[in-house]
Amino acid sequence: MAEMTPQMLGYAAGFLTTVAFVPQVLQVYRSRSARDVSLGMFVLFSTGVVLWLVYGVWIESPPVIWANAVTLVLALAVLGAKWRWPG
Amino acid sequence: MAEMTPQMLGYAAGFLTTVAFVPQVLQVYRSRSARDVSLGMFVLFSTGVVLWLVYGVWIESPPVIWANAVTLVLALAVLGAKWRWPG
Repeated sequence: MAEMTPQMLGYAAGFLTTVAFVPQVLQVYRSRSARDVSLGMFVLFSTGVVLWLVYGVWIESPPVIWANAVTLVLALAVLGAKWRWPG
Repeated sequence: MAEMTPQMLGYAAGFLTTVAFVPQVLQVYRSRSARDVSLGMFVLFSTGVVLWLVYGVWIESPPVIWANAVTLVLALAVLGAKWRWPG
């Protein structure tokens, strides 16, 4: 078995913190309710992810770019649900 | 004015994606309801943040360590609210 490297650990971490948003997106669209989801959280988070994306492009890091591009789409989907079903 | 560096941008990004969880924590504890918050999201996210934390310690990056230590506390607070008030 290959030895674990910090880079592998970083990829696993980035994978988890990105796919984490999938069940949240599914939940708000299935229930058509986003009352308990914080608007402030998703506005701040999406803004931060845009900055991470610019950072990734600047330092030319494909994993940072990809993880944040996917996270941005998912976070904006939650924000859209909050806008439609604020509760 | 000092020129913007990628590192400054990274700090700004990390600050936003960390403090983003503060309004979410306040909202679920004030309303005592976390029905629309996805359990799966916060379990996966917290696990990923633990891995980011280990990654930060491994590569000896204080900003990665601090940002993820704070995020972990906030994400676990949301998870605690979900456990108490699942809705």
